[in-house]
Amino acid sequence: MRSRGHVQFIAPMKIAVVAPSCTLRPEAAEAVMAIAAARGDAELVIHPQCFLSDGHFAGSDAARLEALREVMADERYQAVWFARGGYGSNRIAEAAATDLPAAAKGKSYLGYSDAGFLLAAFDKCGLDVAHGPMVQDIAREDGEAAVHRALDWLVRREKASLEPGLVAGKRAMAFNLKVLTSLLGTAIEPDFTAAELLLEEIAEHEYRIDRMMFHLTGSHAVRRAAGIRMGRMSEIPDNDPVFGSDCESIVRDWCHRSGIPFMGHADIGHDAANRVVPFNYRPN
Amino acid sequence: MRSRGHVQFIAPMKIAVVAPSCTLRPEAAEAVMAIAAARGDAELVIHPQCFLSDGHFAGSDAARLEALREVMADERYQAVWFARGGYGSNRIAEAAATDLPAAAKGKSYLGYSDAGFLLAAFDKCGLDVAHGPMVQDIAREDGEAAVHRALDWLVRREKASLEPGLVAGKRAMAFNLKVLTSLLGTAIEPDFTAAELLLEEIAEHEYRIDRMMFHLTGSHAVRRAAGIRMGRMSEIPDNDPVFGSDCESIVRDWCHRSGIPFMGHADIGHDAANRVVPFNYRPN
Repeated sequence: MRSRGHVQFIAPMKIAVVAPSCTLRPEAAEAVMAIAAARGDAELVIHPQCFLSDGHFAGSDAARLEALREVMADERYQAVWFARGGYGSNRIAEAAATDLPAAAKGKSYLGYSDAGFLLAAFDKCGLDVAHGPMVQDIAREDGEAAVHRALDWLVRREKASLEPGLVAGKRAMAFNLKVLTSLLGTAIEPDFTAAELLLEEIAEHEYRIDRMMFHLTGSHAVRRAAGIRMGRMSEIPDNDPVFGSDCESIVRDWCHRSGIPFMGHADIGHDAANRVVPFNYRPN
Repeated sequence: MRSRGHVQFIAPMKIAVVAPSCTLRPEAAEAVMAIAAARGDAELVIHPQCFLSDGHFAGSDAARLEALREVMADERYQAVWFARGGYGSNRIAEAAATDLPAAAKGKSYLGYSDAGFLLAAFDKCGLDVAHGPMVQDIAREDGEAAVHRALDWLVRREKASLEPGLVAGKRAMAFNLKVLTSLLGTAIEPDFTAAELLLEEIAEHEYRIDRMMFHLTGSHAVRRAAGIRMGRMSEIPDNDPVFGSDCESIVRDWCHRSGIPFMGHADIGHDAANRVVPFNYRPN
Protein backbone atom coordinates (compact mmCIF):
# COMPACT_ATOMS: atom_id res chain seq x y z
CA MET A 1 0.00 0.00 0.00
CA ARG A 2 1.49 3.32 -1.08
CA SER A 3 0.44 6.66 0.30
CA ARG A 4 -1.60 8.55 -2.30
CA GLY A 5 -3.12 11.94 -1.78
CA HIS A 6 -4.99 11.97 1.53
CA VAL A 7 -4.71 8.20 2.09
CA GLN A 8 -2.25 7.69 4.93
CA PHE A 9 0.62 5.33 4.36
CA ILE A 10 0.72 2.59 7.01
CA ALA A 11 3.82 0.46 6.98
CA PRO A 12 3.06 -3.23 7.28
CA MET A 13 3.84 -4.70 10.70
CA LYS A 14 7.12 -6.55 10.69
CA ILE A 15 6.66 -10.01 12.21
CA ALA A 16 9.46 -12.49 12.82
CA VAL A 17 8.75 -16.19 12.51
CA VAL A 18 11.00 -18.64 14.39
CA ALA A 19 10.59 -22.35 15.19
CA PRO A 20 11.59 -23.15 18.80
CA SER A 21 10.18 -26.69 18.51
CA CYS A 22 9.90 -28.59 15.21
CA THR A 23 10.75 -27.77 11.61
CA LEU A 24 8.35 -25.62 9.58
CA ARG A 25 7.30 -27.06 6.24
CA PRO A 26 8.43 -24.85 3.33
CA GLU A 27 4.98 -25.15 1.67
CA ALA A 28 3.37 -23.80 4.84
CA ALA A 29 5.81 -20.89 4.97
CA GLU A 30 5.16 -20.02 1.34
CA ALA A 31 1.40 -20.16 1.68
CA VAL A 32 1.41 -17.92 4.75
CA MET A 33 3.86 -15.47 3.15
CA ALA A 34 1.44 -15.20 0.23
CA ILE A 35 -1.48 -14.50 2.56
CA ALA A 36 0.48 -11.80 4.35
CA ALA A 37 1.56 -10.24 1.07
CA ALA A 38 -2.03 -10.19 -0.17
CA ARG A 39 -3.22 -8.55 3.05
CA GLY A 40 -0.55 -5.89 2.81
CA ASP A 41 -0.60 -5.13 6.53
CA ALA A 42 1.98 -7.67 7.69
CA GLU A 43 5.52 -8.34 6.55
CA LEU A 44 6.56 -11.80 7.64
CA VAL A 45 10.24 -12.53 8.01
CA ILE A 46 10.67 -16.28 8.20
CA HIS A 47 13.96 -16.92 9.98
CA PRO A 48 16.02 -19.56 8.11
CA GLN A 49 16.26 -21.48 11.40
CA CYS A 50 12.66 -22.55 10.80
CA PHE A 51 13.84 -24.97 8.13
CA LEU A 52 16.73 -26.52 10.02
CA SER A 53 16.39 -30.11 11.12
CA ASP A 54 18.25 -31.86 13.93
CA GLY A 55 16.58 -35.10 15.02
CA HIS A 56 13.17 -34.17 16.40
CA PHE A 57 13.88 -30.45 16.35
CA ALA A 58 14.19 -27.46 14.02
CA GLY A 59 17.92 -27.31 14.62
CA SER A 60 19.99 -27.84 17.74
CA ASP A 61 18.99 -26.23 21.02
CA ALA A 62 21.72 -23.67 20.42
CA ALA A 63 20.47 -22.83 16.92
CA ARG A 64 16.84 -22.52 18.05
CA LEU A 65 17.76 -20.41 21.04
CA GLU A 66 20.02 -18.16 19.00
CA ALA A 67 17.33 -17.48 16.39
CA LEU A 68 14.75 -16.77 19.07
CA ARG A 69 17.07 -14.46 21.01
CA GLU A 70 18.02 -12.70 17.79
CA VAL A 71 14.46 -11.79 16.84
CA MET A 72 13.58 -10.89 20.44
CA ALA A 73 16.46 -8.42 20.49
CA ASP A 74 15.68 -6.90 17.09
CA GLU A 75 13.78 -3.63 17.41
CA ARG A 76 12.42 -3.86 13.89
CA TYR A 77 10.08 -6.71 14.82
CA GLN A 78 6.83 -5.81 16.54
CA ALA A 79 5.85 -9.44 16.98
CA VAL A 80 7.39 -12.91 17.18
CA TRP A 81 5.16 -15.59 15.74
CA PHE A 82 6.01 -19.20 16.53
CA ALA A 83 6.09 -21.33 13.39
CA ARG A 84 4.70 -24.52 14.86
CA GLY A 85 4.59 -26.80 17.88
CA GLY A 86 5.58 -30.43 18.13
CA TYR A 87 8.08 -30.70 20.92
CA GLY A 88 11.19 -28.91 22.08
CA SER A 89 10.62 -25.32 23.17
CA ASN A 90 10.89 -26.37 26.83
CA ARG A 91 14.55 -27.16 26.21
CA ILE A 92 15.33 -23.49 25.55
CA ALA A 93 12.52 -21.63 27.33
CA GLU A 94 14.35 -20.83 30.55
CA ALA A 95 17.42 -19.55 28.68
CA ALA A 96 15.26 -17.55 26.28
CA ALA A 97 13.64 -15.74 29.22
CA THR A 98 16.95 -14.87 30.91
CA ASP A 99 18.67 -11.47 30.63
CA LEU A 100 16.01 -10.11 28.32
CA PRO A 101 17.15 -7.59 25.75
CA ALA A 102 15.27 -4.27 25.98
CA ALA A 103 13.62 -4.82 22.58
CA ALA A 104 12.00 -8.05 23.78
CA LYS A 105 9.57 -6.04 25.87
CA GLY A 106 7.72 -4.09 23.21
CA LYS A 107 6.64 -7.13 21.20
CA SER A 108 3.79 -9.63 21.07
CA TYR A 109 4.51 -13.39 21.11
CA LEU A 110 1.97 -15.76 19.63
CA GLY A 111 1.70 -19.55 19.55
CA TYR A 112 0.19 -22.57 21.28
CA SER A 113 0.70 -26.30 21.85
CA ASP A 114 4.39 -26.91 22.57
CA ALA A 115 4.97 -23.13 22.34
CA GLY A 116 3.07 -22.99 25.63
CA PHE A 117 6.41 -23.52 27.38
CA LEU A 118 7.53 -20.17 25.93
CA LEU A 119 4.21 -18.48 26.69
CA ALA A 120 4.67 -19.53 30.32
CA ALA A 121 8.30 -18.48 30.58
CA PHE A 122 7.70 -15.17 28.80
CA ASP A 123 4.54 -14.35 30.74
CA LYS A 124 6.49 -15.00 33.91
CA CYS A 125 9.04 -12.37 32.95
CA GLY A 126 6.48 -9.79 31.91
CA LEU A 127 6.36 -10.17 28.13
CA ASP A 128 3.15 -9.82 26.15
CA VAL A 129 2.12 -13.34 25.13
CA ALA A 130 -0.96 -14.81 23.49
CA HIS A 131 -2.15 -18.37 22.83
CA GLY A 132 -3.31 -18.68 19.24
CA PRO A 133 -2.76 -20.07 15.74
CA MET A 134 0.70 -20.63 14.30
CA VAL A 135 2.14 -20.59 10.78
CA GLN A 136 1.97 -24.36 10.32
CA ASP A 137 -1.80 -24.24 10.97
CA ILE A 138 -2.19 -23.29 7.31
CA ALA A 139 -1.95 -27.02 6.63
CA ARG A 140 -5.19 -27.67 8.55
CA GLU A 141 -8.59 -27.68 6.92
CA ASP A 142 -9.72 -24.03 7.02
CA GLY A 143 -6.17 -23.13 7.98
CA GLU A 144 -6.40 -19.85 6.09
CA ALA A 145 -8.98 -18.59 8.58
CA ALA A 146 -6.61 -19.47 11.43
CA VAL A 147 -3.77 -17.53 9.79
CA HIS A 148 -5.97 -14.46 9.22
CA ARG A 149 -7.21 -14.65 12.80
CA ALA A 150 -3.62 -14.67 14.06
CA LEU A 151 -2.56 -11.78 11.82
CA ASP A 152 -5.72 -9.80 12.58
CA TRP A 153 -4.79 -10.03 16.23
CA LEU A 154 -1.10 -9.30 15.83
CA VAL A 155 -1.53 -6.39 13.42
CA ARG A 156 -4.68 -4.65 14.58
CA ARG A 157 -5.81 -6.25 17.82
CA GLU A 158 -9.00 -7.41 16.12
CA LYS A 159 -11.58 -8.32 18.75
CA ALA A 160 -13.17 -10.96 16.52
CA SER A 161 -9.94 -12.95 16.82
CA LEU A 162 -10.33 -13.30 20.56
CA GLU A 163 -11.72 -16.16 22.56
CA PRO A 164 -15.22 -14.81 23.18
CA GLY A 165 -15.28 -15.30 26.95
CA LEU A 166 -12.35 -13.01 27.64
CA VAL A 167 -12.94 -9.90 29.68
CA ALA A 168 -10.64 -6.91 29.23
CA GLY A 169 -8.52 -6.33 32.31
CA LYS A 170 -8.99 -9.87 33.63
CA ARG A 171 -6.07 -12.22 33.30
CA ALA A 172 -6.56 -15.40 31.26
CA MET A 173 -4.00 -18.06 30.39
CA ALA A 174 -4.44 -20.77 27.79
CA PHE A 175 -2.43 -23.95 27.49
CA ASN A 176 -2.35 -27.41 26.12
CA LEU A 177 -3.03 -29.54 29.19
CA LYS A 178 -0.01 -31.81 28.63
CA VAL A 179 2.32 -28.85 28.19
CA LEU A 180 0.96 -27.10 31.26
CA THR A 181 1.30 -30.13 33.51
CA SER A 182 4.85 -30.66 32.22
CA LEU A 183 6.01 -27.25 33.43
CA LEU A 184 4.47 -27.31 36.91
CA GLY A 185 7.11 -26.74 39.54
CA THR A 186 9.83 -25.88 37.03
CA ALA A 187 11.65 -22.58 36.64
CA ILE A 188 9.23 -21.48 33.91
CA GLU A 189 6.01 -21.96 35.88
CA PRO A 190 4.14 -18.64 35.66
CA ASP A 191 1.90 -17.04 38.27
CA PHE A 192 -1.64 -18.35 37.93
CA THR A 193 -3.09 -16.12 40.63
CA ALA A 194 -6.62 -15.00 39.80
CA ALA A 195 -6.26 -16.00 36.15
CA GLU A 196 -8.83 -17.96 34.20
CA LEU A 197 -7.06 -21.08 32.99
CA LEU A 198 -8.18 -22.26 29.55
CA LEU A 199 -7.18 -25.81 28.66
CA GLU A 200 -7.17 -27.79 25.44
CA GLU A 201 -5.89 -31.23 24.54
CA ILE A 202 -5.46 -33.54 21.60
CA ALA A 203 -4.87 -37.24 21.13
CA GLU A 204 -4.58 -38.24 24.78
CA HIS A 205 -6.52 -41.14 26.28
CA GLU A 206 -9.18 -40.36 28.88
CA TYR A 207 -7.18 -42.08 31.60
CA ARG A 208 -4.27 -39.78 30.78
CA ILE A 209 -6.50 -36.72 30.83
CA ASP A 210 -7.75 -37.88 34.22
CA ARG A 211 -4.15 -38.28 35.44
CA MET A 212 -3.21 -34.86 34.10
CA MET A 213 -6.21 -33.22 35.75
CA PHE A 214 -5.25 -34.93 39.03
CA HIS A 215 -1.76 -33.48 38.67
CA LEU A 216 -2.86 -30.02 37.57
CA THR A 217 -5.51 -29.53 40.21
CA GLY A 218 -3.25 -30.97 42.89
CA SER A 219 -0.84 -28.08 42.41
CA HIS A 220 -0.97 -25.31 45.00
CA ALA A 221 0.13 -22.83 42.36
CA VAL A 222 -2.76 -23.80 40.08
CA ARG A 223 -5.24 -23.62 42.94
CA ARG A 224 -4.60 -19.86 43.00
CA ALA A 225 -6.29 -19.56 39.59
CA ALA A 226 -9.74 -18.00 39.34
CA GLY A 227 -11.05 -21.09 37.61
CA ILE A 228 -10.76 -23.44 34.69
CA ARG A 229 -12.46 -23.21 31.31
CA MET A 230 -12.41 -26.22 29.06
CA GLY A 231 -11.39 -25.92 25.43
CA ARG A 232 -11.76 -28.68 22.90
CA MET A 233 -10.28 -32.06 23.70
CA SER A 234 -10.12 -33.72 20.32
CA GLU A 235 -9.00 -36.94 18.64
CA ILE A 236 -9.25 -38.78 21.97
CA PRO A 237 -8.25 -42.41 21.31
CA ASP A 238 -10.56 -45.15 22.53
CA ASN A 239 -9.94 -46.07 26.14
CA ASP A 240 -9.65 -49.79 26.81
CA PRO A 241 -11.77 -50.59 28.76
CA VAL A 242 -14.37 -47.83 28.30
CA PHE A 243 -13.21 -45.22 30.79
CA GLY A 244 -16.54 -44.55 32.41
CA SER A 245 -16.72 -40.77 32.06
CA ASP A 246 -16.04 -38.30 29.26
CA CYS A 247 -13.51 -35.46 29.14
CA GLU A 248 -15.89 -32.84 30.42
CA SER A 249 -16.93 -35.01 33.37
CA ILE A 250 -13.26 -35.60 34.13
CA VAL A 251 -12.43 -31.90 34.10
CA ARG A 252 -15.50 -31.05 36.19
CA ASP A 253 -14.73 -33.84 38.66
CA TRP A 254 -11.18 -32.64 39.37
CA CYS A 255 -12.34 -29.02 39.60
CA HIS A 256 -14.90 -30.15 42.13
CA ARG A 257 -12.40 -32.23 44.13
CA SER A 258 -9.82 -29.45 44.25
CA GLY A 259 -12.14 -26.52 44.81
CA ILE A 260 -11.09 -24.80 41.58
CA PRO A 261 -14.22 -23.33 39.94
CA PHE A 262 -15.26 -24.89 36.63
CA MET A 263 -16.15 -21.87 34.52
CA GLY A 264 -17.55 -23.48 31.36
CA HIS A 265 -16.16 -23.89 27.87
CA ALA A 266 -13.45 -22.13 25.91
CA ASP A 267 -13.23 -21.68 22.15
CA ILE A 268 -9.69 -22.98 21.81
CA GLY A 269 -8.27 -26.25 20.54
CA HIS A 270 -5.78 -28.01 18.32
CA ASP A 271 -7.72 -26.95 15.22
CA ALA A 272 -8.25 -24.12 12.78
CA ALA A 273 -11.02 -22.61 14.91
CA ASN A 274 -8.56 -21.96 17.75
CA ARG A 275 -9.18 -18.40 19.00
CA VAL A 276 -6.60 -16.04 20.41
CA VAL A 277 -6.08 -15.72 24.17
CA PRO A 278 -3.79 -12.84 25.18
CA PHE A 279 -2.73 -13.57 28.75
CA ASN A 280 -3.21 -9.92 29.69
CA TYR A 281 -6.03 -8.68 27.53
CA ARG A 282 -6.54 -4.97 27.87
CA PRO A 283 -9.04 -2.83 26.05
CA ASN A 284 -7.60 -0.93 23.05
CA MET B 1 4.02 -77.14 57.43
CA ARG B 2 3.25 -78.76 60.74
CA SER B 3 5.55 -78.70 63.74
CA ARG B 4 7.15 -82.11 64.28
CA GLY B 5 9.58 -82.94 66.98
CA HIS B 6 12.26 -80.23 67.06
CA VAL B 7 11.13 -78.58 63.80
CA GLN B 8 9.62 -75.23 64.71
CA PHE B 9 6.16 -74.45 63.37
CA ILE B 10 6.16 -71.22 61.43
CA ALA B 11 2.77 -69.85 60.49
CA PRO B 12 2.60 -68.64 56.91
CA MET B 13 2.66 -64.85 56.53
CA LYS B 14 -0.79 -63.46 55.91
CA ILE B 15 -0.73 -61.14 52.92
CA ALA B 16 -3.71 -59.12 51.72
CA VAL B 17 -4.12 -58.43 48.02
CA VAL B 18 -6.15 -55.40 46.91
CA ALA B 19 -6.43 -53.63 43.57
CA PRO B 20 -6.35 -49.83 43.92
CA SER B 21 -6.06 -49.36 40.15
CA CYS B 22 -7.40 -51.89 37.60
CA THR B 23 -9.16 -55.24 37.88
CA LEU B 24 -7.14 -58.37 38.60
CA ARG B 25 -7.66 -61.27 36.21
CA PRO B 26 -9.07 -64.32 38.02
CA GLU B 27 -6.57 -66.63 36.24
CA ALA B 28 -3.72 -64.54 37.61
CA ALA B 29 -5.15 -64.68 41.11
CA GLU B 30 -5.56 -68.46 40.93
CA ALA B 31 -2.06 -69.05 39.61
CA VAL B 32 -0.47 -66.91 42.31
CA MET B 33 -2.61 -68.50 45.04
CA ALA B 34 -1.34 -71.88 43.86
CA ILE B 35 2.28 -70.69 44.02
CA ALA B 36 1.79 -69.38 47.55
CA ALA B 37 0.11 -72.60 48.64
CA ALA B 38 2.97 -74.67 47.23
CA ARG B 39 5.54 -72.49 49.01
CA GLY B 40 3.71 -72.84 52.30
CA ASP B 41 5.20 -69.68 53.77
CA ALA B 42 2.59 -67.21 52.56
CA GLU B 43 -1.17 -67.12 52.87
CA LEU B 44 -2.62 -64.80 50.27
CA VAL B 45 -6.04 -63.32 50.91
CA ILE B 46 -7.32 -61.90 47.67
CA HIS B 47 -9.86 -59.23 48.55
CA PRO B 48 -13.02 -59.60 46.43
CA GLN B 49 -12.65 -55.94 45.45
CA CYS B 50 -9.84 -57.09 43.12
CA PHE B 51 -12.43 -58.49 40.74
CA LEU B 52 -14.81 -55.54 40.68
CA SER B 53 -15.05 -53.53 37.50
CA ASP B 54 -16.23 -49.95 37.12
CA GLY B 55 -15.19 -48.39 33.81
CA HIS B 56 -11.40 -48.25 33.82
CA PHE B 57 -11.11 -49.27 37.45
CA ALA B 58 -11.40 -52.23 39.82
CA GLY B 59 -14.54 -50.80 41.34
CA SER B 60 -15.51 -47.25 42.20
CA ASP B 61 -13.10 -44.97 44.04
CA ALA B 62 -15.14 -45.61 47.18
CA ALA B 63 -14.95 -49.39 46.79
CA ARG B 64 -11.20 -49.38 46.10
CA LEU B 65 -10.51 -47.03 48.99
CA GLU B 66 -12.67 -49.02 51.37
CA ALA B 67 -10.93 -52.32 50.54
CA LEU B 68 -7.51 -50.72 50.89
CA ARG B 69 -8.38 -49.05 54.19
CA GLU B 70 -9.88 -52.30 55.44
CA VAL B 71 -6.73 -54.36 54.90
CA MET B 72 -4.50 -51.56 56.18
CA ALA B 73 -6.46 -51.53 59.43
CA ASP B 74 -6.51 -55.32 59.83
CA GLU B 75 -3.86 -56.50 62.26
CA ARG B 76 -3.84 -60.00 60.85
CA TYR B 77 -2.13 -58.88 57.65
CA GLN B 78 1.61 -58.40 57.75
CA ALA B 79 1.74 -57.14 54.19
CA VAL B 80 -0.46 -55.51 51.57
CA TRP B 81 0.40 -56.56 48.04
CA PHE B 82 -1.04 -54.54 45.19
CA ALA B 83 -2.70 -56.74 42.60
CA ARG B 84 -1.77 -54.77 39.52
CA GLY B 85 -1.24 -51.32 38.04
CA GLY B 86 -2.98 -49.75 35.08
CA TYR B 87 -4.39 -46.46 36.27
CA GLY B 88 -6.34 -45.15 39.20
CA SER B 89 -4.56 -45.40 42.53
CA ASN B 90 -3.83 -41.65 42.44
CA ARG B 91 -7.58 -41.05 42.80
CA ILE B 92 -7.57 -42.58 46.30
CA ALA B 93 -3.95 -42.22 47.45
CA GLU B 94 -4.33 -39.04 49.48
CA ALA B 95 -7.42 -40.38 51.28
CA ALA B 96 -5.75 -43.74 51.89
CA ALA B 97 -2.85 -42.00 53.62
CA THR B 98 -5.06 -39.87 55.88
CA ASP B 99 -5.85 -40.74 59.52
CA LEU B 100 -3.87 -43.95 59.39
CA PRO B 101 -5.13 -46.80 61.53
CA ALA B 102 -2.50 -48.07 63.99
CA ALA B 103 -2.28 -51.43 62.25
CA ALA B 104 -1.23 -49.75 58.99
CA LYS B 105 2.18 -49.05 60.46
CA GLY B 106 3.50 -52.55 61.04
CA LYS B 107 3.02 -53.75 57.47
CA SER B 108 4.91 -53.84 54.21
CA TYR B 109 3.34 -52.49 51.01
CA LEU B 110 4.54 -53.76 47.66
CA GLY B 111 3.79 -52.74 44.07
CA TYR B 112 4.98 -50.60 41.15
CA SER B 113 3.75 -48.83 38.02
CA ASP B 114 0.49 -47.05 38.87
CA ALA B 115 0.84 -48.26 42.47
CA GLY B 116 3.72 -45.77 42.67
CA PHE B 117 1.15 -43.15 43.68
CA LEU B 118 0.49 -45.23 46.82
CA LEU B 119 4.18 -45.90 47.42
CA ALA B 120 4.71 -42.12 47.38
CA ALA B 121 1.77 -41.29 49.62
CA PHE B 122 2.56 -44.08 52.08
CA ASP B 123 6.28 -43.35 52.18
CA LYS B 124 5.41 -39.74 52.91
CA CYS B 125 3.45 -40.79 55.98
CA GLY B 126 6.08 -43.18 57.27
CA LEU B 127 4.83 -46.55 56.07
CA ASP B 128 7.16 -49.29 54.89
CA VAL B 129 6.86 -49.41 51.09
CA ALA B 130 8.73 -51.25 48.37
CA HIS B 131 8.69 -51.07 44.57
CA GLY B 132 8.46 -54.56 43.12
CA PRO B 133 6.43 -57.21 41.29
CA MET B 134 2.67 -57.48 41.61
CA VAL B 135 0.20 -60.37 41.39
CA GLN B 136 -0.75 -59.69 37.77
CA ASP B 137 2.92 -60.08 36.76
CA ILE B 138 2.30 -63.82 36.74
CA ALA B 139 0.88 -63.24 33.24
CA ARG B 140 4.30 -62.12 31.96
CA GLU B 141 6.85 -64.47 30.48
CA ASP B 142 8.83 -65.77 33.48
CA GLY B 143 6.16 -64.27 35.69
CA GLU B 144 6.58 -67.07 38.21
CA ALA B 145 10.06 -65.82 39.05
CA ALA B 146 8.64 -62.34 39.64
CA VAL B 147 6.02 -63.72 42.02
CA HIS B 148 8.59 -65.72 43.97
CA ARG B 149 10.86 -62.68 44.14
CA ALA B 150 8.03 -60.63 45.60
CA LEU B 151 7.05 -63.30 48.13
CA ASP B 152 10.68 -63.99 49.05
CA TRP B 153 11.00 -60.33 49.92
CA LEU B 154 7.69 -60.00 51.76
CA VAL B 155 8.02 -63.21 53.76
CA ARG B 156 11.71 -63.47 54.57
CA ARG B 157 13.42 -60.29 53.41
CA GLU B 158 15.44 -62.31 50.91
CA LYS B 159 18.42 -60.26 49.75
CA ALA B 160 18.45 -61.90 46.33
CA SER B 161 15.11 -60.22 45.64
CA LEU B 162 16.63 -56.78 45.99
CA GLU B 163 17.85 -54.42 43.33
CA PRO B 164 21.58 -55.14 43.53
CA GLY B 165 22.77 -51.55 43.86
CA LEU B 166 20.91 -50.87 47.10
CA VAL B 167 22.92 -50.09 50.19
CA ALA B 168 21.44 -50.85 53.60
CA GLY B 169 20.69 -47.67 55.48
CA LYS B 170 20.67 -45.49 52.37
CA ARG B 171 17.32 -44.32 51.12
CA ALA B 172 16.26 -45.36 47.62
CA MET B 173 12.98 -44.71 45.85
CA ALA B 174 11.82 -46.37 42.65
CA PHE B 175 9.11 -45.16 40.33
CA ASN B 176 7.68 -45.34 36.90
CA LEU B 177 8.79 -42.04 35.38
CA LYS B 178 5.29 -41.10 34.18
CA VAL B 179 3.77 -41.82 37.58
CA LEU B 180 6.47 -39.88 39.40
CA THR B 181 6.15 -36.80 37.20
CA SER B 182 2.37 -36.93 37.63
CA LEU B 183 2.58 -36.56 41.40
CA LEU B 184 5.13 -33.75 41.58
CA GLY B 185 3.76 -30.84 43.55
CA THR B 186 0.67 -32.72 44.71
CA ALA B 187 -0.28 -33.60 48.27
CA ILE B 188 1.29 -37.07 47.88
CA GLU B 189 4.74 -35.92 46.79
CA PRO B 190 7.21 -37.62 49.16
CA ASP B 191 10.52 -36.27 50.43
CA PHE B 192 13.29 -37.08 47.96
CA THR B 193 16.07 -35.66 50.11
CA ALA B 194 19.29 -37.67 49.79
CA ALA B 195 17.49 -40.62 48.20
CA GLU B 196 18.66 -42.45 45.13
CA LEU B 197 15.87 -42.16 42.60
CA LEU B 198 15.43 -45.25 40.40
CA LEU B 199 13.33 -44.72 37.29
CA GLU B 200 11.74 -47.07 34.79
CA GLU B 201 9.41 -46.52 31.87
CA ILE B 202 7.45 -48.40 29.26
CA ALA B 203 5.80 -47.54 25.97
CA GLU B 204 6.51 -43.82 25.94
CA HIS B 205 8.05 -42.05 22.95
CA GLU B 206 11.52 -40.57 23.32
CA TYR B 207 10.17 -37.04 22.99
CA ARG B 208 7.84 -37.77 25.90
CA ILE B 209 10.67 -39.21 27.97
CA ASP B 210 12.64 -36.07 27.23
CA ARG B 211 9.68 -33.93 28.31
CA MET B 212 9.24 -35.96 31.49
CA MET B 213 12.93 -35.70 32.34
CA PHE B 214 12.74 -31.92 31.79
CA HIS B 215 9.82 -31.81 34.21
CA LEU B 216 11.32 -34.16 36.78
CA THR B 217 14.74 -32.56 36.91
CA GLY B 218 13.22 -29.08 36.91
CA SER B 219 11.58 -29.80 40.27
CA HIS B 220 13.27 -28.30 43.32
CA ALA B 221 12.03 -31.21 45.41
CA VAL B 222 13.64 -33.74 43.06
CA ARG B 223 16.91 -31.79 43.01
CA ARG B 224 17.29 -32.73 46.68
CA ALA B 225 17.75 -36.38 45.66
CA ALA B 226 21.19 -37.95 45.89
CA GLY B 227 21.02 -38.93 42.23
CA ILE B 228 19.20 -40.82 39.55
CA ARG B 229 19.67 -44.43 38.48
CA MET B 230 18.10 -45.55 35.24
CA GLY B 231 16.02 -48.72 35.10
CA ARG B 232 14.82 -50.29 31.90
CA MET B 233 12.89 -48.15 29.46
CA SER B 234 11.19 -50.70 27.27
CA GLU B 235 8.79 -50.96 24.33
CA ILE B 236 9.68 -47.41 23.30
CA PRO B 237 7.63 -46.64 20.15
CA ASP B 238 9.44 -45.26 17.11
CA ASN B 239 9.86 -41.53 17.25
CA ASP B 240 8.85 -39.70 14.07
CA PRO B 241 11.22 -38.21 13.05
CA VAL B 242 14.13 -40.13 14.61
CA PHE B 243 14.58 -38.34 17.93
CA GLY B 244 18.33 -37.92 17.75
CA SER B 245 19.32 -39.45 21.09
CA ASP B 246 18.39 -42.59 23.00
CA CYS B 247 16.78 -42.93 26.42
CA GLU B 248 20.04 -43.15 28.31
CA SER B 249 21.42 -40.05 26.59
CA ILE B 250 18.19 -38.24 27.43
CA VAL B 251 18.37 -39.19 31.11
CA ARG B 252 22.06 -38.30 31.31
CA ASP B 253 21.48 -35.00 29.54
CA TRP B 254 18.82 -33.82 31.97
CA CYS B 255 20.86 -34.99 34.95
CA HIS B 256 23.74 -32.97 33.60
CA ARG B 257 21.60 -29.88 32.96
CA SER B 258 20.02 -29.98 36.40
CA GLY B 259 23.06 -30.94 38.43
CA ILE B 260 21.46 -34.17 39.67
CA PRO B 261 24.13 -36.91 39.63
CA PHE B 262 23.55 -39.72 37.13
CA MET B 263 24.42 -42.83 39.15
CA GLY B 264 24.22 -45.59 36.54
CA HIS B 265 21.69 -48.31 35.86
CA ALA B 266 19.02 -49.97 37.99
CA ASP B 267 17.67 -53.50 37.67
CA ILE B 268 14.01 -52.51 37.59
CA GLY B 269 11.47 -52.32 34.79
CA HIS B 270 8.03 -53.20 33.53
CA ASP B 271 9.01 -56.84 33.19
CA ALA B 272 9.40 -60.09 35.10
CA ALA B 273 13.02 -59.30 36.01
CA ASN B 274 11.90 -56.26 38.03
CA ARG B 275 13.78 -56.35 41.35
CA VAL B 276 12.51 -55.13 44.70
CA VAL B 277 13.37 -51.65 45.97
CA PRO B 278 12.36 -51.02 49.59
CA PHE B 279 12.42 -47.24 50.03
CA ASN B 280 14.09 -47.63 53.42
CA TYR B 281 16.26 -50.70 53.14
CA ARG B 282 17.75 -51.64 56.45
CA PRO B 283 19.96 -54.60 57.19
CA ASN B 284 18.11 -57.54 58.76
